[in-house]
Amino acid sequence: MGETQRLATLDSSIVDRLPAYSKSLFDAKTEKGLSFESIAQHLGRSEVAVAALFYGQAQASAEDVDKLSSLLGVPKEAIASQMMGFPDRGRSGPMPPVEPLIYRLYEVVQNYGYAYKAIMNEKFGDGIMSAICFDTKVEKEVDNTGTTWAIITLRGKWLPFSRF
Amino acid sequence: MGETQRLATLDSSIVDRLPAYSKSLFDAKTEKGLSFESIAQHLGRSEVAVAALFYGQAQASAEDVDKLSSLLGVPKEAIASQMMGFPDRGRSGPMPPVEPLIYRLYEVVQNYGYAYKAIMNEKFGDGIMSAICFDTKVEKEVDNTGTTWAIITLRGKWLPFSRF
Amino acid sequence: MGETQRLATLDSSIVDRLPAYSKSLFDAKTEKGLSFESIAQHLGRSEVAVAALFYGQAQASAEDVDKLSSLLGVPKEAIASQMMGFPDRGRSGPMPPVEPLIYRLYEVVQNYGYAYKAIMNEKFGDGIMSAICFDTKVEKEVDNTGTTWAIITLRGKWLPFSRF
Amino acid sequence: MGETQRLATLDSSIVDRLPAYSKSLFDAKTEKGLSFESIAQHLGRSEVAVAALFYGQAQASAEDVDKLSSLLGVPKEAIASQMMGFPDRGRSGPMPPVEPLIYRLYEVVQNYGYAYKAIMNEKFGDGIMSAICFDTKVEKEVDNTGTTWAIITLRGKWLPFSRF
Amino acid sequence: MGETQRLATLDSSIVDRLPAYSKSLFDAKTEKGLSFESIAQHLGRSEVAVAALFYGQAQASAEDVDKLSSLLGVPKEAIASQMMGFPDRGRSGPMPPVEPLIYRLYEVVQNYGYAYKAIMNEKFGDGIMSAICFDTKVEKEVDNTGTTWAIITLRGKWLPFSRF
Amino acid sequence: MGETQRLATLDSSIVDRLPAYSKSLFDAKTEKGLSFESIAQHLGRSEVAVAALFYGQAQASAEDVDKLSSLLGVPKEAIASQMMGFPDRGRSGPMPPVEPLIYRLYEVVQNYGYAYKAIMNEKFGDGIMSAICFDTKVEKEVDNTGTTWAIITLRGKWLPFSRF
Amino acid sequence: MGETQRLATLDSSIVDRLPAYSKSLFDAKTEKGLSFESIAQHLGRSEVAVAALFYGQAQASAEDVDKLSSLLGVPKEAIASQMMGFPDRGRSGPMPPVEPLIYRLYEVVQNYGYAYKAIMNEKFGDGIMSAICFDTKVEKEVDNTGTTWAIITLRGKWLPFSRF
Amino acid sequence: MGETQRLATLDSSIVDRLPAYSKSLFDAKTEKGLSFESIAQHLGRSEVAVAALFYGQAQASAEDVDKLSSLLGVPKEAIASQMMGFPDRGRSGPMPPVEPLIYRLYEVVQNYGYAYKAIMNEKFGDGIMSAICFDTKVEKEVDNTGTTWAIITLRGKWLPFSRF
Amino acid sequence: MGETQRLATLDSSIVDRLPAYSKSLFDAKTEKGLSFESIAQHLGRSEVAVAALFYGQAQASAEDVDKLSSLLGVPKEAIASQMMGFPDRGRSGPMPPVEPLIYRLYEVVQNYGYAYKAIMNEKFGDGIMSAICFDTKVEKEVDNTGTTWAIITLRGKWLPFSRF
Amino acid sequence: MGETQRLATLDSSIVDRLPAYSKSLFDAKTEKGLSFESIAQHLGRSEVAVAALFYGQAQASAEDVDKLSSLLGVPKEAIASQMMGFPDRGRSGPMPPVEPLIYRLYEVVQNYGYAYKAIMNEKFGDGIMSAICFDTKVEKEVDNTGTTWAIITLRGKWLPFSRF
Repeated sequence: MGETQRLATLDSSIVDRLPAYSKSLFDAKTEKGLSFESIAQHLGRSEVAVAALFYGQAQASAEDVDKLSSLLGVPKEAIASQMMGFPDRGRSGPMPPVEPLIYRLYEVVQNYGYAYKAIMNEKFGDGIMSAICFDTKVEKEVDNTGTTWAIITLRGKWLPFSRF
Repeated sequence: MGETQRLATLDSSIVDRLPAYSKSLFDAKTEKGLSFESIAQHLGRSEVAVAALFYGQAQASAEDVDKLSSLLGVPKEAIASQMMGFPDRGRSGPMPPVEPLIYRLYEVVQNYGYAYKAIMNEKFGDGIMSAICFDTKVEKEVDNTGTTWAIITLRGKWLPFSRF
Repeated sequence: MGETQRLATLDSSIVDRLPAYSKSLFDAKTEKGLSFESIAQHLGRSEVAVAALFYGQAQASAEDVDKLSSLLGVPKEAIASQMMGFPDRGRSGPMPPVEPLIYRLYEVVQNYGYAYKAIMNEKFGDGIMSAICFDTKVEKEVDNTGTTWAIITLRGKWLPFSRF
Repeated sequence: MGETQRLATLDSSIVDRLPAYSKSLFDAKTEKGLSFESIAQHLGRSEVAVAALFYGQAQASAEDVDKLSSLLGVPKEAIASQMMGFPDRGRSGPMPPVEPLIYRLYEVVQNYGYAYKAIMNEKFGDGIMSAICFDTKVEKEVDNTGTTWAIITLRGKWLPFSRF
Repeated sequence: MGETQRLATLDSSIVDRLPAYSKSLFDAKTEKGLSFESIAQHLGRSEVAVAALFYGQAQASAEDVDKLSSLLGVPKEAIASQMMGFPDRGRSGPMPPVEPLIYRLYEVVQNYGYAYKAIMNEKFGDGIMSAICFDTKVEKEVDNTGTTWAIITLRGKWLPFSRF
Repeated sequence: MGETQRLATLDSSIVDRLPAYSKSLFDAKTEKGLSFESIAQHLGRSEVAVAALFYGQAQASAEDVDKLSSLLGVPKEAIASQMMGFPDRGRSGPMPPVEPLIYRLYEVVQNYGYAYKAIMNEKFGDGIMSAICFDTKVEKEVDNTGTTWAIITLRGKWLPFSRF
Repeated sequence: MGETQRLATLDSSIVDRLPAYSKSLFDAKTEKGLSFESIAQHLGRSEVAVAALFYGQAQASAEDVDKLSSLLGVPKEAIASQMMGFPDRGRSGPMPPVEPLIYRLYEVVQNYGYAYKAIMNEKFGDGIMSAICFDTKVEKEVDNTGTTWAIITLRGKWLPFSRF
Repeated sequence: MGETQRLATLDSSIVDRLPAYSKSLFDAKTEKGLSFESIAQHLGRSEVAVAALFYGQAQASAEDVDKLSSLLGVPKEAIASQMMGFPDRGRSGPMPPVEPLIYRLYEVVQNYGYAYKAIMNEKFGDGIMSAICFDTKVEKEVDNTGTTWAIITLRGKWLPFSRF
Repeated sequence: MGETQRLATLDSSIVDRLPAYSKSLFDAKTEKGLSFESIAQHLGRSEVAVAALFYGQAQASAEDVDKLSSLLGVPKEAIASQMMGFPDRGRSGPMPPVEPLIYRLYEVVQNYGYAYKAIMNEKFGDGIMSAICFDTKVEKEVDNTGTTWAIITLRGKWLPFSRF
Repeated sequence: MGETQRLATLDSSIVDRLPAYSKSLFDAKTEKGLSFESIAQHLGRSEVAVAALFYGQAQASAEDVDKLSSLLGVPKEAIASQMMGFPDRGRSGPMPPVEPLIYRLYEVVQNYGYAYKAIMNEKFGDGIMSAICFDTKVEKEVDNTGTTWAIITLRGKWLPFSRF
């Protein structure tokens, strides 16, 4: 058993918090040995969006369902109506997060929340960065000292508060 | 009274949750009519870092204190020992955030937390993106439809879990 | 598989929080391909009220049960005693809501709660707007720039505090 | 002392949770005996928006400040920088609300949250009703039985989730 | 299907929070079409006490078990040992209550708690009204305008604090 | 110092959670040595309502203010605008209550909540007992064994859920 | 069915929070009609300790398992490995307790916590009473007026804080 | 400065959670160098009760006030009305307790709560041990190995649940 | 049944919070009568790391899986994909911990948190001790009075906050 | 202003949660430019213990007070009675901690809690590591790659659960 690429699997203890198709998709992904990167390329979508689909946090298009079905060998009828329905977002994990990787993202919001607000208010006015009209990606950088950096980009439409 | 650049001020109701120098700095900033952008340029630091300094979420260097003192007209002795001390981070606002702009960042973590984890685990292995050995910035993009986008970049060192 | 009207389905992970008939109704609705709009027309009731019936948040009349049973092909005896019983309201989702659409309604209450109170107190006196003797509806508006707006109307009987 | 129009005042026990100008504005309003309706007319803005300004939940324009200052007799310099700054929203009261009027709005979200979501998803697709690009109003209706109804209208831009 | 007397049933989603006999009793009650009023008359006990028995919040006597068994057709052995055991009270619903009817009772405690305390302290001294050596009832009043009023009476032994 | 009638006073540690006039009223009541019973008689109102006025949980009429002012010797102008304003109810104590007397009322709701709901639903239909169009009183009963009982009566208008 | 000694049983709704052997032991206890007093005598241990064993809050010795097995007729192999393992204490009920009997013990800690601390600090110095090197018992007292009193004794080793 | 008897003092950071007389009493106690043991002897009351008086958790008699006033040199008028009023109990510290000594008492309730309930139910029937008609004491035992044990005795009237 | 070495087993009531392989591993460990010490020696890893593997809090290498599989007789395919996946850490128990042993570690953080921070800041500067690039061990010390001490060592890489 | 040794100071926003002497000690420490290391050497105590003294989490001996008073120039009478009193521990910061350094210690307990318990139970039996009869220290290690490691050692007496 070599130390090959390891794949994200679905912890059995959170299955009940996710829609039923999550387990089907993760099981098939493990079976086929596919990474999210390869699935994302196949779907022509962002990796984060695809992982969000697997965790029930995003809506699939008909084309997404077709492609996932054929790539993973999961019958379309088993996943289509739920995946093309309207996701019930936000319940995959507890908040504050207890998972260390996710906690650190939360900690960034906790520590820099007001700093972001001050900078964005001065740069854009009174409003918010949308988390709906929004996309995000993860990138890898290896600097010239050989150190690996993770880079997360959040990009949302700026929405000014209405005056009424 | 023209509709000029508006500046971030310190809400009087959160003063008690922040170190005493926060109020001095914000008051001086308002008085001088300085934006965080101009202060950051003067200090040669990132805007978010400078706002974090104002909110007591980052440590100042001696040079930062010198420059802030002269730029804002705040006596060095009034701010140096506290600002160069070790910040007591994370208490500036409630969690979950109630402020709409900050809440949406929290919502991104809530909705995409597991997706980020899955993607980062497959890309980097078992570990976390550091929020300490970390920097972040805010940028503005206006696309060709004239829509304004806010872009937040989080960049942290990747730390693999130790095997022991 | 065309990009036709998508239908609200019941997330498998919240089934346990709802009365047993919720699943039967949603399954039949999906099977028949019916929208809430068409079911509401068939019942002669408001769309929101009908969705609330499906989520176990409202009481059905005998006539509602008859019509739902024939329209959806669900045996009357499977749903009548529970749907005509007294709903155990308020447990369908967590509060604060984690679902983004529902959260924004909560945020309106959080941000404008005292403003509503002040306006209503001055307009109506010391009292409350009833959430029981109450109806509500959702409407769609497309303005002349082509922008789509959602409009929610809450209409409740005004109840003054008794003097005793 | 006649039973004349009563005015909303600021409870002394929540003063510390609001920006400092809230107290000045409410004190002046009480002194002048002005209702929010008359202030709103003077400002040419919605009543709810004006009450939200008083509670520090909305940003004032320069013109708002001018008009409030002259109408209420509050020196412009005492309120301008804070009111034209960027509000730190969402902290005026506890959630869940304990105030009966505000609680009933919260209860509407608690009971009908999923029903709204289902109806809006079927009507508009996967997305949210914005609480930022948003306006709201309160109206009074007396029906033909003499019963008084309060009507709250929430109107927000529909934002579809981005596909990425 | 006529609009006859409706009966309280047990919401399937709270079955797991109650002792096992709750479901048996409610099922039999529904089957027999019995109201709590008629069951209470049969047992010679208060309606609230009987409903509390059904929800596992009160202890049954041997005679209660005999009568319930024969009236409802539930085998005595299926319910006797648990119903005559010692109830594990207080877990039937969440607190703060989310059910609107129960919430309003909670709100009475929230709003008038200190007023009750002040009045009872002046009337009875330093002590409490027992919730153990206690009985309660619900009555209906229709006043001369035809308005229906619900009346709940709480009657508890007064217990003065011991001096030691 | 004889063991005479003791009077409810205002604990200095909760003053900040109540409107400013609470302290003035309680101080004057202590000074004058008046019980709530005698104040209630003077005002022609219920004892609980009067205590609620003192704790800022009810609105005063102009006549209430006149009478309180003359009875207690508190200048009318010091209390009128706030007491005749719109109370910000529900914040006088923590929930769950920690005060033993108030806790036992809460415990009644916790233990008998569903029993009340079942009985009231069967007696009145689907609805709630209003806590707004509502009055309440406290009475004392000494039974023939010499035992003292406290009796609290809650009386609220029955509000059926609207059908829409 | 006579009004004989009633026995503590295990509420079916908390079975899932306890180790699997709890149900076996309680079922056998009910079947055999044994009180904790008689089981404790058989084991030569304190009643509270034996009840704690049944609720999974204490570790059994090999001899305890032998005796429980023969007394209750539960196969030794069904209970030995778990009962002789290391208990996962503290999860049998919610805190704050909602069960009235347990709540009153909690209330004693809430009301007298600082008083105990002050007295014990003055009597013993800076330290704690151990809850580990600890035993406890329940006794019954009937005083000369015929009143029944429950007496709980907590006896723990005094542990002074180390100086380092 | 010798290592003499140390006295319990009042932590300045909890002063605001206690009635105003707490500070006066503790300051005088420190000044006079009195232990709770000696004060209790002077008052002829239990040590725990006296400490509870100091923390505002018990009501003083006129005689208690006289004796405390003369022993501590605190003017009677400064403490009488509040100390003889009705205590607002239960707010001296947070729950769960964070203070280690108090936490261990809480832990006893957490771990042994159901065991106490089972034993007391079998011994006394369905009811509770009163925390109102209640007394408690702390004792010191030094066993024959020289080990010091703290013993807390809780003694409360047994109150059976009423049958109604 | 002798009083031999007792082994840690898995409480049946927490099985659902852990990944599915936890139960398989613990069952096999109990069956084989193996201590964590002997398993750790077999794997050449730290005892704490091995227990963390069993509780799903650490990632296994291919070699770990091989060795565990052969030592415990658990089929490799039953555990490999999950154990070599990415752990979903942090959900094994509630926080604050209710288990007494774990609580005391939490209490150390609660009581000494700021002291550690002050010492580490002065010794290392502004930063944190990593809990990721981290190892830990438990040791036993018997001092010359025969007293047993437990020693836990936490060793983490020091990470200074980035300046940006 | 050189980049010399920086000293831990007391954040003005937590002063109110600590005993009054904390501020005096920290102010004097800052004034004198003393590190905890040098103060600890002067007192002959551990650094962590000394920092805990400053944060009000440990009791001072008379000798500690003498030495601190002379070293820091703080009058003995200003600190002796409180510092030699009995600390009210555990309230210096919120839990879960929001401060990043302290949070990581908490995370260690969250992730490894059950692993520590399993290892310690197998090594020591059923019991706990005392946090009272306890000492702790912080050390610095620079490994041969130049990496800095922080090492925290927790050493507590092992307390077996009593059998009773």
